[in-house]
Amino acid sequence: MTRRILTGFLVLVASSTRLWAQDPLPSWNDGAAKKAIVEFVQSTTTSSNPKFVPPPERIATFDQDGTLWVEHPVYSQLIYCLDRVPALVKAKPELANVEPFKTVMSGDREAIAKLPMGDIEKIAVATLTGMSVDEFSAEATKWAASAKDPRWKRPYTELTYQPMQEVLKFLRANGYKTYIVTGGGQDFVRTYSERVYGIPPEQVVGTAGATKFGYDENGRPFLTKEPKLVLNDNNAGKAEGIHLMIGRRPHAAFGNTAGDQQMLEYTGAGDGARLMMLVLHDDAKREYAYGPATGLPDTKVGTFSQALYDEAKKKGWTVISMKNDWKKIFAFGD
Amino acid sequence: MTRRILTGFLVLVASSTRLWAQDPLPSWNDGAAKKAIVEFVQSTTTSSNPKFVPPPERIATFDQDGTLWVEHPVYSQLIYCLDRVPALVKAKPELANVEPFKTVMSGDREAIAKLPMGDIEKIAVATLTGMSVDEFSAEATKWAASAKDPRWKRPYTELTYQPMQEVLKFLRANGYKTYIVTGGGQDFVRTYSERVYGIPPEQVVGTAGATKFGYDENGRPFLTKEPKLVLNDNNAGKAEGIHLMIGRRPHAAFGNTAGDQQMLEYTGAGDGARLMMLVLHDDAKREYAYGPATGLPDTKVGTFSQALYDEAKKKGWTVISMKNDWKKIFAFGD
Repeated sequence: MTRRILTGFLVLVASSTRLWAQDPLPSWNDGAAKKAIVEFVQSTTTSSNPKFVPPPERIATFDQDGTLWVEHPVYSQLIYCLDRVPALVKAKPELANVEPFKTVMSGDREAIAKLPMGDIEKIAVATLTGMSVDEFSAEATKWAASAKDPRWKRPYTELTYQPMQEVLKFLRANGYKTYIVTGGGQDFVRTYSERVYGIPPEQVVGTAGATKFGYDENGRPFLTKEPKLVLNDNNAGKAEGIHLMIGRRPHAAFGNTAGDQQMLEYTGAGDGARLMMLVLHDDAKREYAYGPATGLPDTKVGTFSQALYDEAKKKGWTVISMKNDWKKIFAFGD
Repeated sequence: MTRRILTGFLVLVASSTRLWAQDPLPSWNDGAAKKAIVEFVQSTTTSSNPKFVPPPERIATFDQDGTLWVEHPVYSQLIYCLDRVPALVKAKPELANVEPFKTVMSGDREAIAKLPMGDIEKIAVATLTGMSVDEFSAEATKWAASAKDPRWKRPYTELTYQPMQEVLKFLRANGYKTYIVTGGGQDFVRTYSERVYGIPPEQVVGTAGATKFGYDENGRPFLTKEPKLVLNDNNAGKAEGIHLMIGRRPHAAFGNTAGDQQMLEYTGAGDGARLMMLVLHDDAKREYAYGPATGLPDTKVGTFSQALYDEAKKKGWTVISMKNDWKKIFAFGD
């Protein structure tokens, strides 16, 4: 072996070792899903590759509920709204005998779970609007610091999927701007997105209401949250919201339900390299199993329906099996 | 002189020289306005300074028309709309005899200038909506590359104020995210903001219409621009738009008319260091003179009124005199 070949060999070993030591997705098992992510990032960031994407165009969007963190059995924002009802009734005692607040105050979990969508909307309007944006932000922040999921007995903000946190970091380390595009409330998610996901508020697109500019008694301006919808960031609204708030088509999009269908279709309709992925909830032991892989009932809103699963296969979107693709689900456990 | 003092002296000289050589605002004359900008940046980026602002919170917002580029005598987006009318009439010949399109087609400049706001809105709706976002973007890009301002005989996109371009760069070099917050169309400004100001589309907040998600005959999804307003980004709408699109209160805001008043008030109402500046158009020779300093008529929409000028004085906002504070107005000339 000549010295030159030896040197080349050693460099190769060293760089392979470095790559191995630096596996950007250590919580992922080897397989099609992990491979799709790694190949997408490598090809779009290698300037000699025909799939190269210039840095300003590196946009990746992520649904939150069920894609970045647990959405089952109830969205955490709905729990926030229900948890706010006692304070609301204290401030407005006349609501104590008015439905749906009466049912919520009864503490009857079965009755609460059966409230129709119209009642849920009444609770959402009453607990998410009518206060200043600063007041809302302070309340939501306080809640997130103390409220706990009953199964894991941890703050909801700890129930993020470790493998997806690694995807966020891996994309950002390669020049991608990561966005949350959620059906959840934009103002709600923005209160914790930076701390929980490293995603700043200006990179959160969500269901958004109007605000109203006004002045307090000292002439200081403030914004009040109004019960008027500006963006319903679900289904077609996700593609429309991406145009409104970002103005560029993403090169990668991650979702888990029919509410994400149009976002993935819109992403896939662009030229060049595009990565579309769906998280399949098939791990009843470590998280939950619901949707097409199980025959079990979907969650109330935004289901990963059989039709979406079929579309994913047809269009070459990658389905992530939580059970098979993820070594661990949460940072704190298995 | 001991060695320690000598070393200290040399370091001082060296760093002064470096600062001098690197004047970040070479097109600005020394004065209160330049001083306010430099002191704001230095104090908010020095970690030992009580006015320090952590990098994620460094947000600066800029009105466009009259603040970053020429708005007189007519907004360039209105010229775009008028320039689009012939193609519109060609596609829909029945419009040739319908007002206000008939007047626009006549080429009678005086009559066009007298069109009431309702007619201007009709022209805007007809030329800015009803096509896909990609079609609109292509048309607007083509127009910006060829249309010229009659006074300077240059593309409108060259009529940006060199001193403000320096402020944008200076802020960005110090970790600020710079945003355009404009009454102009968000989709319109986004077609050139990156090229002209170094501001990416996702950092342009503007007057925005709804879009509608749909599929073409090949099943490919696209978005159509709808004649439905989502955000009127003027006056109170600028503060509301900043909350919707950015979700953080700016630490610096720049404007020039009453349309920017609430943005500056909202910025100034935050804690810690805040910089509020207004561009005064008092340079009839190199640009235009209008507004309170002149007694001359304001532009049609969004005037820098005497009341705003008085509020600026009262609240300690800094007024930038184009005549006195700016060494040169444009990159291409004096």
